[in-house]
Amino acid sequence: MQLILASASPARLEVLRNAGVDVVAMPAQVDEDVVLSKLTSATPAEKVRKLAEVKALDLLGSARKDTIHAQIGSFGVEEEQDAVYILGCDSMFEFEGNVYGKPHTAENAVALFNKLTGKSGVLHTGMALICAQSYTDTSQEMRSRTVSAVVNFAQMTDAEIAQYVDTGEPLEVAGGFAIDGRGGAFIESIQGDYSAIVGVSVNALREMLKEYHEDIANFWTP
Amino acid sequence: MQLILASASPARLEVLRNAGVDVVAMPAQVDEDVVLSKLTSATPAEKVRKLAEVKALDLLGSARKDTIHAQIGSFGVEEEQDAVYILGCDSMFEFEGNVYGKPHTAENAVALFNKLTGKSGVLHTGMALICAQSYTDTSQEMRSRTVSAVVNFAQMTDAEIAQYVDTGEPLEVAGGFAIDGRGGAFIESIQGDYSAIVGVSVNALREMLKEYHEDIANFWTP
Repeated sequence: MQLILASASPARLEVLRNAGVDVVAMPAQVDEDVVLSKLTSATPAEKVRKLAEVKALDLLGSARKDTIHAQIGSFGVEEEQDAVYILGCDSMFEFEGNVYGKPHTAENAVALFNKLTGKSGVLHTGMALICAQSYTDTSQEMRSRTVSAVVNFAQMTDAEIAQYVDTGEPLEVAGGFAIDGRGGAFIESIQGDYSAIVGVSVNALREMLKEYHEDIANFWTP
Repeated sequence: MQLILASASPARLEVLRNAGVDVVAMPAQVDEDVVLSKLTSATPAEKVRKLAEVKALDLLGSARKDTIHAQIGSFGVEEEQDAVYILGCDSMFEFEGNVYGKPHTAENAVALFNKLTGKSGVLHTGMALICAQSYTDTSQEMRSRTVSAVVNFAQMTDAEIAQYVDTGEPLEVAGGFAIDGRGGAFIESIQGDYSAIVGVSVNALREMLKEYHEDIANFWTP
């Protein structure tokens, strides 16, 4: 068995590895803006699911079975007969009807936290799983879903907002907070799947693998 | 500023370090059974809070200011004038009115998961924070609280229970599941503070520090 994460996110890779899942990361090359331009009327939950599907398919299409196996070989996996699964993921943060991406600048981050303080938002994570060997253009067999979770932010003082933004951590995180980093100190509670908030739901991965008649245990490191 | 965690739990240490908190661990020497024997009518939430207080006080009592400073010195902290805080923690898992500790044996773990599958339990984490310099037997100034969070377990097949128990991970974890390990695959969602489920709430630590007029940012690693 081999799982390939079609994502460059270190946080996602860490979630899966902390959960004992043996995984390699091979980022997909997808122009998200082009995909999203065709989904203008979709909800955030639909958008992340579609983007996850496009990412997984992109990796499958650009790599295909032989290439994937060659690439996996370089990561030390020898048994060519093992099934290869590709997991695409995408996340969006929704707050009061708007979607917030990465703040990029300290100014944007401060403005965002001034809105979020003491309130709740929703983190949507789309996931798509393809079995590389059995997928064909005619079978088009893919499993996908969105896992959404509520994030309840603590009241932050102006000093706390400034201190957190100063760390630089929020600038390149969707929604501006890293629940698995310093940002965790400002999250009072959640309702939903914690790992989905970080970017990939381990429970959803287990369930999707089951639909392919695979146990997640077969992907655990020894 | 220096924070000492009065706990031997690697999971707690990792939660705090992942949240950027600079902390050293110095386990307290407390006979929990003796403490609990005086709390027979207390709720689990009250018990973990009391145990957290006893652990923090034990470390303060056994070490006291000078010794603590000497010990901290060996960890590389030089500025003796900085405030030293001691954090005690204790966690219990409650399910259908009973408290479950570490399963210890595979047999116990399988029996426990057969109960938990598809149901919900509550993880209680007690936390107590003392400022070593300002605490005296007469001031008895201490902050403490319990953070409780609901854990919703996925439906587990017999095979999944056997596979998870085989990893050995559940045997020495209160309640038998490590949400921050392979066990995360079998937790559908939570309601509450994720880090409290792992064993120490970063948000509660931030709030308790505030009661001492300290910002958590002062405890962040650079």
